[in-house]
Amino acid sequence: MGEFDLIRRCFSFHAGAAPGVLRSVGDDCAVLEAGPLAVSTDTLVAGVHFPPEAPAEWIAERAVRVCTSDLAAMAAEPLAATLALSLTPEAFEQGWAERFAGGLRPALERAGLRLVGGDTTRGSVSITLTVMGRCEKPVSRDGARPGHRIGVTGALGGARAALVRPDLSRSREHPFNRRYWQPPFRLEFARRLAGRVSAMLDISDGLLADLGHILAASRVGATLDGSKIPMQDNLPASQALEWALTGGDDYELCFTCPPAQMADIEALACELDVPVTWIGDIVAGQGLHVTGFDLASMDIKGFEHFG
Amino acid sequence: MGEFDLIRRCFSFHAGAAPGVLRSVGDDCAVLEAGPLAVSTDTLVAGVHFPPEAPAEWIAERAVRVCTSDLAAMAAEPLAATLALSLTPEAFEQGWAERFAGGLRPALERAGLRLVGGDTTRGSVSITLTVMGRCEKPVSRDGARPGHRIGVTGALGGARAALVRPDLSRSREHPFNRRYWQPPFRLEFARRLAGRVSAMLDISDGLLADLGHILAASRVGATLDGSKIPMQDNLPASQALEWALTGGDDYELCFTCPPAQMADIEALACELDVPVTWIGDIVAGQGLHVTGFDLASMDIKGFEHFG
Repeated sequence: MGEFDLIRRCFSFHAGAAPGVLRSVGDDCAVLEAGPLAVSTDTLVAGVHFPPEAPAEWIAERAVRVCTSDLAAMAAEPLAATLALSLTPEAFEQGWAERFAGGLRPALERAGLRLVGGDTTRGSVSITLTVMGRCEKPVSRDGARPGHRIGVTGALGGARAALVRPDLSRSREHPFNRRYWQPPFRLEFARRLAGRVSAMLDISDGLLADLGHILAASRVGATLDGSKIPMQDNLPASQALEWALTGGDDYELCFTCPPAQMADIEALACELDVPVTWIGDIVAGQGLHVTGFDLASMDIKGFEHFG
Repeated sequence: MGEFDLIRRCFSFHAGAAPGVLRSVGDDCAVLEAGPLAVSTDTLVAGVHFPPEAPAEWIAERAVRVCTSDLAAMAAEPLAATLALSLTPEAFEQGWAERFAGGLRPALERAGLRLVGGDTTRGSVSITLTVMGRCEKPVSRDGARPGHRIGVTGALGGARAALVRPDLSRSREHPFNRRYWQPPFRLEFARRLAGRVSAMLDISDGLLADLGHILAASRVGATLDGSKIPMQDNLPASQALEWALTGGDDYELCFTCPPAQMADIEALACELDVPVTWIGDIVAGQGLHVTGFDLASMDIKGFEHFG
């Protein structure tokens, strides 16, 4: 099977036009009818971002969810994706692409993304997804102001627990594995936050590191209440708060808003069944403080690939 | 230097808004103001698509030109790009990213592309560029009809010559190296062909393989005049025609048009100083014939990564 066969057999499931997609797989480019369009690219490398021995279907689903999370963080509506897939000849021979495609398609469709193009190459196993979404009201990172409240969705620290004690023999439904392999889609909630929140992002590197990006972009500081941080159930007690504060890969949303918006946001969270916790406040000046927790005792820079 | 420093130092040169770019590097997504948008993704892997020992600046420029060529083939106007860059720790330590960025920026700007986002990861050296361009009148591959003429830009076979006898000690200005490392931008010519041509693509896998895509998509055949194929100067005589017909990586345009458009296209080629050669005709039925050349004597499937 050659490259063109591979594309035809595994990755042409969204060939043909669709609303917003004028041309799809099979030409030099896809053509989108877009308006304001949010675009984000993420790469997942075997052995760096996921265990190489993990099932290809799991890897595909996680890739889609991780990448889509950036669209949620901008309050965008998913439209289309391109896939750059590098495979070793061995993985190729062993049907890795077929299994990957088997996980990719339902995840893309769940996300609302159509696969409109890409590239398949020979190389070490690596996945680069570029996702695009309509984005009438982008929510950026620079709008947090002193007095604004800080909220997060879901519970934190579970993905770190899955990484610290990886156990692929467990079902993907195990709560820690699920946090890592199937991070949540927060798309609708995020879109409906647009206009209500002053800054938003997704928690990929850890709450403190990512909140730090909002603080830097907005030129403000923050105080968090250590007793309010929502923690994944059943984390080891001695590490639960640290993992919730610094563990990455949870892909929950962190956002800020004027206090007047809190009631609306809580009602929306209730309507869409998205857990929201208010964890602290934006303050004037610089710095990030967590009551009841000594930040100096750990590395809060988050995950840096070349650090 | 960590990942965020790397992005800041090397790849933030197009941060900030610009016409058509509402948000750029530094948020969860870039946001484009797009209309109909052509999107294409290409991956270049060290040791597969380029010699790993080649200068990083050369690799960057080639990546931009190769990827931009897909936009030209759709008659799109370049707008923005994202970069997914994987680097080994050794390449990172040796300043590879800085040298790569040094070649990337001028090439992007020459192409009319702004770098609006991406991802940097640790892994074997690999570059994935996703390019986006405005595309009011996309030119697809399925419009060729019997009686239409077949044209190509430039001269073919030079990039193959550079690959068969790689010599990085030569200047990049050597004609063969130049064909491989600095394939032409045909953007303006291609845009102005929109509405005049019935099908178009760029020659990445070889003239016969790529023209085969047009024939398949349009459900037609073709006859080429072997004596008309434009060949790079100074190819070895015994291989010149084969390399021109099957050598990939030239990134010239191949297009079809009704005969009534030929004079306009020739005038445009003259105005923009783009060499155009008429090499044959679209015919009813299937198959691709080259007068004066035995196709059975070679592999015309083109380059397939898993073939």
